[in-house]
Parts: sequence; C-alpha cells; structure tokens
Amino acid sequence: MTMTNTEHNTSTAAGDIGAEAAAASAAGSATAAGPVTEEMLARGRRAHDLDRKHVFHSWQAQGPFNPMTIVRSEGTRVWDGEGRELLDFSSQLVNTNIGHQHPAVVRAIQDQAADICTIAPQHVNDARSEAARLIAEIAPDGLEHVFFTNGGADANEHAIRMARLHTGRQKVLSAYRSYHGGTNLAVNLTGDPRRFANDNPGDGVVHFMPAYPYRSYFGSTTEAEETERALRHLEDMITLEGPQNIAALLLETVPGTAGIYAPPAGYLEGVRELTERHGIMFIADEVMAGFGRTGEWLAIDHWGVTPDLITFAKGVNSGYVPLGGVIISDEVYSSFVDRQYPGGLTYSGHPLACAAAVATITAMRDEGMIENAKRMGDEVIGPRLEEIKAKHPSVGDVRGMGCFWAIELVKNRETREPLAPYGGSSDAMNAVMGAIKEGGVLPFANFNRIHVVPPLNVSEADVRTALDVIDRALDVADGYVE
Amino acid sequence: MTMTNTEHNTSTAAGDIGAEAAAASAAGSATAAGPVTEEMLARGRRAHDLDRKHVFHSWQAQGPFNPMTIVRSEGTRVWDGEGRELLDFSSQLVNTNIGHQHPAVVRAIQDQAADICTIAPQHVNDARSEAARLIAEIAPDGLEHVFFTNGGADANEHAIRMARLHTGRQKVLSAYRSYHGGTNLAVNLTGDPRRFANDNPGDGVVHFMPAYPYRSYFGSTTEAEETERALRHLEDMITLEGPQNIAALLLETVPGTAGIYAPPAGYLEGVRELTERHGIMFIADEVMAGFGRTGEWLAIDHWGVTPDLITFAKGVNSGYVPLGGVIISDEVYSSFVDRQYPGGLTYSGHPLACAAAVATITAMRDEGMIENAKRMGDEVIGPRLEEIKAKHPSVGDVRGMGCFWAIELVKNRETREPLAPYGGSSDAMNAVMGAIKEGGVLPFANFNRIHVVPPLNVSEADVRTALDVIDRALDVADGYVE
Repeated sequence: MTMTNTEHNTSTAAGDIGAEAAAASAAGSATAAGPVTEEMLARGRRAHDLDRKHVFHSWQAQGPFNPMTIVRSEGTRVWDGEGRELLDFSSQLVNTNIGHQHPAVVRAIQDQAADICTIAPQHVNDARSEAARLIAEIAPDGLEHVFFTNGGADANEHAIRMARLHTGRQKVLSAYRSYHGGTNLAVNLTGDPRRFANDNPGDGVVHFMPAYPYRSYFGSTTEAEETERALRHLEDMITLEGPQNIAALLLETVPGTAGIYAPPAGYLEGVRELTERHGIMFIADEVMAGFGRTGEWLAIDHWGVTPDLITFAKGVNSGYVPLGGVIISDEVYSSFVDRQYPGGLTYSGHPLACAAAVATITAMRDEGMIENAKRMGDEVIGPRLEEIKAKHPSVGDVRGMGCFWAIELVKNRETREPLAPYGGSSDAMNAVMGAIKEGGVLPFANFNRIHVVPPLNVSEADVRTALDVIDRALDVADGYVE
Repeated sequence: MTMTNTEHNTSTAAGDIGAEAAAASAAGSATAAGPVTEEMLARGRRAHDLDRKHVFHSWQAQGPFNPMTIVRSEGTRVWDGEGRELLDFSSQLVNTNIGHQHPAVVRAIQDQAADICTIAPQHVNDARSEAARLIAEIAPDGLEHVFFTNGGADANEHAIRMARLHTGRQKVLSAYRSYHGGTNLAVNLTGDPRRFANDNPGDGVVHFMPAYPYRSYFGSTTEAEETERALRHLEDMITLEGPQNIAALLLETVPGTAGIYAPPAGYLEGVRELTERHGIMFIADEVMAGFGRTGEWLAIDHWGVTPDLITFAKGVNSGYVPLGGVIISDEVYSSFVDRQYPGGLTYSGHPLACAAAVATITAMRDEGMIENAKRMGDEVIGPRLEEIKAKHPSVGDVRGMGCFWAIELVKNRETREPLAPYGGSSDAMNAVMGAIKEGGVLPFANFNRIHVVPPLNVSEADVRTALDVIDRALDVADGYVE
C-alpha cells in the first residue's frame, strides 16, 4: 500500500510555504516542489477521504473534526496534505525525540523485521533482552528489571498493580493537573478534565494538589514556600487517607501535557522521604519527560531521586513502534520471584519495538542528543523565551528545561487569568495557534499554553526560526490582553 | 495458572529433534548447521543471560521461570536456543495467523518504515486510512468506523467506554471462562483465574455462566438444551441485575484461551436478540477468534450475527507490530459525532502497525488463507482429532473449527474430571506437554487442555506431522487415566 519516498520529482506550489520554515530548511529542500510529489499528495487526498469515512479519532467529536494530512516526515519537518513544510515543534505527541525517520532507527526496524518480527513474551528474544539491559543501565542503581508494555497507559496500570500487590494496599495517590493515559484505570489516575467523562470512584484513586509555583494552590509566593506547603499538604493527605491503605504515589516527574511545570527545589526529595517513611511505592511517570526530553536521560536525574517504579513510553523509541514499560526496583521485583505476577500482554517485549528502542538509545548516545537538548534549553530556548516574555504582555510565564518548555498565556499578568479556561479553548488561543501554523510551525497546545517541544536533535537554526514565528504570533495574543 | 507451561531449556542437541519434525522439514534444514548458525546460537545464549537479569515476564513467578530462547522463525517453524526446529502449533499466543516472517508483510513493514514510521492520531495517515477501510469491509454492514488501539486489552477497555457513554449505563456483563486482557478493567472483565489477584468489584462487571456444552453449568445433555438453558440464565441475569443499568454484554465469539468452545447453535442469535431487546450493547471480542482463525474472516460470520462493537488485535496483522482496535456500529458512532470521545492513545492508528495490517489482510486474501484454515479444520484437523479421541481414553473432548481446536484431557471420560484442575497444572499435563515438545512441536496449553492452533496457511503435511506427535504424546496422558 505504501511506497518509499525516494522520488523527488514534482511540482507543487512552493509559494504556500511559510517564509520562516522555507528560510530554515537551509539545505535547499525547502520548497514543496522538492520533497513532496504529486503522487504523495494524491495519496494524501485519498487517505483524507477514507479517514473521514472509516477512522475514529482519539479525544475528538468525530463530526466537525477535520484532521490535517501528513504526507511526509523527516527530521524536524513534516509536510501536510497541500505539500506545505512545517517545523514539527510538537514532536507529534511529544514522542519523536529523535525527530522523524532517523535513518539508523529506520534501518534497525527493517533489519529486525527481516530477522524476527514477533515472539511471544514467554520466550527469550535478543532485541528484548538488549533493550532491557540498556534501559536498566539508564535507570538508577537498584532498578534492574523491565516489564515491557505497549505504551504509557498500560505501563502505569501495571506499575499500580505491582505496587498494590507488593504492599498489600489498594489506594493510590496521584496529582491533579496530570496525565497518565487513556485506559480506564490510567484515565482515573489522570488529574485533568479528560477524566471527567470516565470518572470511576471505585478505582481507589485519590488526587492531591501538586506543587505548581505559577498557580500555587497554597498561596505561595516563592518556590521555597511552594515546596514546603505542597509537601505539608501531601503529608496531610497521607495522614487523612491513612498511610497503611496507600499502595502508591504516582507522579509525573515533570508534568507534561498538564503544563510542563518542573517541581520546585526540594519537592521530589520530600516526596521520596514521605513515601519511604510510610511504605508507599513512589512511581515516577516518565512517559513524556523521560528519555532525554528534559536534557537528562531521565527527568529524575535532575534531582537525584530514586523511585520504586519508573514508567516510560514515547521517547524510549520515539514512538516508531508502540512500546512502553515499567522499570522495577529490586524490592518490588522480590515480590514476584516466587509469586506469579498476575498481568501480561501478547506484545510484551515486542522484538520490533525493542529493536527500535535499542537503536534509538544508541543514536541518542552516539549523536549526543541529550547534551544537545540540554544546550538548546539552557542557551537558546530558555533565553529566547525570556525575551518573548519581556516583550509580550500576553505571556504570563515561560518555563521548562531541555526541549520541554511551556508558554503560559494570560489575559492579565497581574491576575494571571488564563487566555483559555481550564479544560477548554478560546478564540484567542485558536487565533494564536492558527498564526503559528500559518508561520510554518506545528505547535502543541493545551488550554492556555503553547508547548515548545521539538526533537532533542533539533538544530539551533530551526529553534530560532520556530521561536521567531511564535514571537510574531504572540502579537495576536497581545490583542486579547485586558 | 500460566498460558503455556513453563518451557524447559533441555539439554538436547540437534540430533534429538523429534523424528516427525525432522521429517517435516523436507528441505534438509532440520539441523542446527542449516538454518541456525553458531552466531545465532551465541546471540541466543547472551540474550538468555540478559533476559534473566533484566526482563520481567508476563504471568510468571520470575524466579523459577526458565524461558525458551527462540533464535529464528519462519512460516510454521521456530528454532530454539539449541538450534532445535519446532513446529509452532501455538502461533505464539495464537496471533501469528499468517505464520512467521511472511515475506510480503515483512516487506510492507520495511517500506512503511522507510516512508513514515509514526504520525500522531490527530493527523491523517494513508496506512491508517487503508487499514480502516479494509477492516470495515470485513466487518458486517453497519459497522463502518475503526478506533485503533495497541492491543486487545485496550480495545476491550475502549469498547466498554463507548458502550457506557452511548447508553448512559455503567454495568457490564461478561462470561465466566473468558479472557479479555491484562489491564485493570480488562482483567476484571476476564472470567478466568487470572482475574483473582486483581479483583476489583468497583469496576462494575458482573459475570454470567457461558454456554459450554461439554461442561454444562445447567446440567444440559444436548446442545439444544444448553442453548435454551444458557439463554434463559442470561435473561434471568439481565432481569435480576436490571436491564436499565446494563451498558454492555461482552463475549468472545468463540472463547479462546478459556477453552475454544464454540457457542451451540442458536446461542449467539439469542444473545443478540436479548441485548437488542434491552438496549444493551453487544460487544463481540474477536481478539483471538477473528481474522481467519476459525476459517471465516470473523468468527461471527459463522452465525450471521451483527454485534454493536467488535474488538480485534492479534490476527489483524499477525502481531508483527502491536495493533488492536474496535469496529464501531453507526449507532454507537452517532453518539460521538457531536460529543467528544473521551479516550485516546499516542499510538492509535500507528502507521507501521496499520501497514502490517493492510499487508496481512491482503496476503490472507491473495493466498486463500481463510479457505485453507477452513479446509484444514474440516478435512484434516477435525477428522484426525476424532481418531485421536477414539484411541485415547484420556481425551474427553475434541472441538473447534478452522485452525482453532482444543483437546480436553480427563482422568475419566465418564466423570469428565480434568487432568489438571481449573486454574492449575498437574504432573500429568506437564508430562504430556514435555512429550509434545520432545516430539518437535511447540504447543499451547491451558489447564487440562491442549490447543491445536497453527497458522492459517499451515500445510497439510505439517498438520499431520504435529498431530502424529500429539497422538503419541497422549499415550503419556492415558497413563494417568483412573
């Protein structure tokens, strides 16, 4: 059905390309006449028609939804159904950490496909073994085993199961303003409005207030105050829920879709101390923040904290093949040495997915992608976003690390009233997003925030181009400031 | 407790290959010197070492588990860590419906990898559109949309969510002696002992007794009686639970791991009539039975019944890339035209997985695999299993269709006492399984049953070879008959 994209010989309107994106694609592949062929566009049109007839989309009202077609992808770029080149600063769903179509990873998938596509989880496969070895190597000492799943949602579901069986307790604490996946338990662990339609109090999940300095739930005015008050709140929650009933505390190390708000200094250390004191398993959800996104292999590396369980997906193989998993401490592992682990899945440790993980981790290492992400964050994205904040009254906050940044838009800097309500969108946000896309950049947005989340191997030139586009688009947002 | 018996890494060398398997590998590829190189074996040994250090396995007590290594796979064959060739009559976890390493599907994966590995679910991708079109074409009229997931568990989770939101009801009926997946809700929907350690009454699932003629829960002595009584029981359950509270009835069309017991004539039609009368969504779980396994595209095709939702995974692309999904009736779809569907996942409609599905469905069609499965079932497996049953007093029942068969072993044909207890194993079963594997066949077993589940494109010669091995191994079982 599909074809390789080796033909570079056609003819689309180059004029439609955003000037910034065109300028950015230095190697001369900037015009639609280059990388996108008429045949690819025709295929894209057919795909769009069939999509509307037969594909049911995630998180959408299906009727009014008019999805964008993507006909080609490479590195930091994608091409839409009209052949327009876009700088992908969404990394799709913040998963293509090595960019699109990394040749070494594509080759590894092709080689593994030629060797062994699939082997059931009860057998040994070398791609699986090697992926587990590399992931255990990346994890803190004392977490040496990996249970592979298909994605982040089932990784969190299984981590909760391990914690419940290990502790013999049922209740789970997780934070508001969080996202943990779309299956039933995972969406109930989630602390954003996507949970509302799926609410099941029977799942045993209790939510607490996170440390979120910009919109403190505790009236804090400094980070130190936020850390202290958020930890006191958490301790109060544990006391009031009964520590002897709490199996696990699940927390995104740096919450992602919910706002890219890194924990203030001391918070994670405090969470570790509290959970340890009460025999509660601390599960760090690194599905979005892990595998280089923050400029470290794992986000917890910034704080030197060792959780009991770490969940991952996305960046582990850039989502080139569905893969997720749980990294398991020796203590939790010990619970399942003699006792059966009552969970599993047909594709656990899928060879194709694991081979992609091995190649992705290797490419990240060999090409210094983590270091690049850190440098981009420290030297390019961070400083440029501060300039943008200084310039635009609509920008309430900019924050992040590595290739993981949020711009929080407000109607008023003093009141911090968001430019779109919690759980919703607004004309203002839609106008800003439209302007960014018009400028040739594919952004990631959530409520009143724009997330700047390019691949870790993004070039400085592409970052500057995209941030210039965002800078200009924010003039639109400024028009909504009250 | 486990889906297949623990595999033992026996110390056999190539020379110990079962005569049958050796004879079957006509091309002289039976010895380790042939298709399995010393380098592959060395890689396998390293993989085994790393596996024990770093891989956490599904459904196992990790300590005593000694998994079999697979170093190569092709068609109906796999080669273990000592280079022994085995006829794969497990199809791994009953998923490799087109056998191992089908060249057209391998090529499609390689081509798609070269084109676009991954695109987020909110965009249009042509592999996804084409897979959805083909799957809707296979489904009954009136089910035209496909929501893609990563596997069968999340397919069932999302089908339940759709049914709950569509009906505004919460409760779900599912059958005992069933399997629906390993995530929290899915394992609670499950009606086998794997649920016990995960039991969560808060999930709103109520189990009913299935129609299971060989071990009737209703004291039936004929199929007609079983149909009538099982339907009456189901109607009683609906009445007593309150039809106005029941969102969905979830049922494997032909229960798989739980025993490959096809519904007696009239049962599914009765289930459809009952659910329709009460506004209950009928969800057919075709994760294992679908995509040719029973000798029809979907197992429901045998009975001409149209469910509201159909879940699938495994055979849709032979598990070459993780993929599952829900096929949605126009009525359920209509609920999400204007209202957001509150569910999703990063890898929904993954291009690589969908390209593998397109190629798999195409290969099944082009090569007449469904017809082959039907012929094998009707003309080879069925008659040969009847001979085996006539010969061995340990065989209580043989049943199935297509490439989907169970041999139920008993201590006594009159009492039907199983050769291993519900939820457990036994020395007798382990001895039989060992003998089958010694004979060069990789079987699938559950409790007191051996499942004969080769790929759909298996040759008659391979079927005869494997059934001869099983025939001989059942002499061991006969020794346990009381």
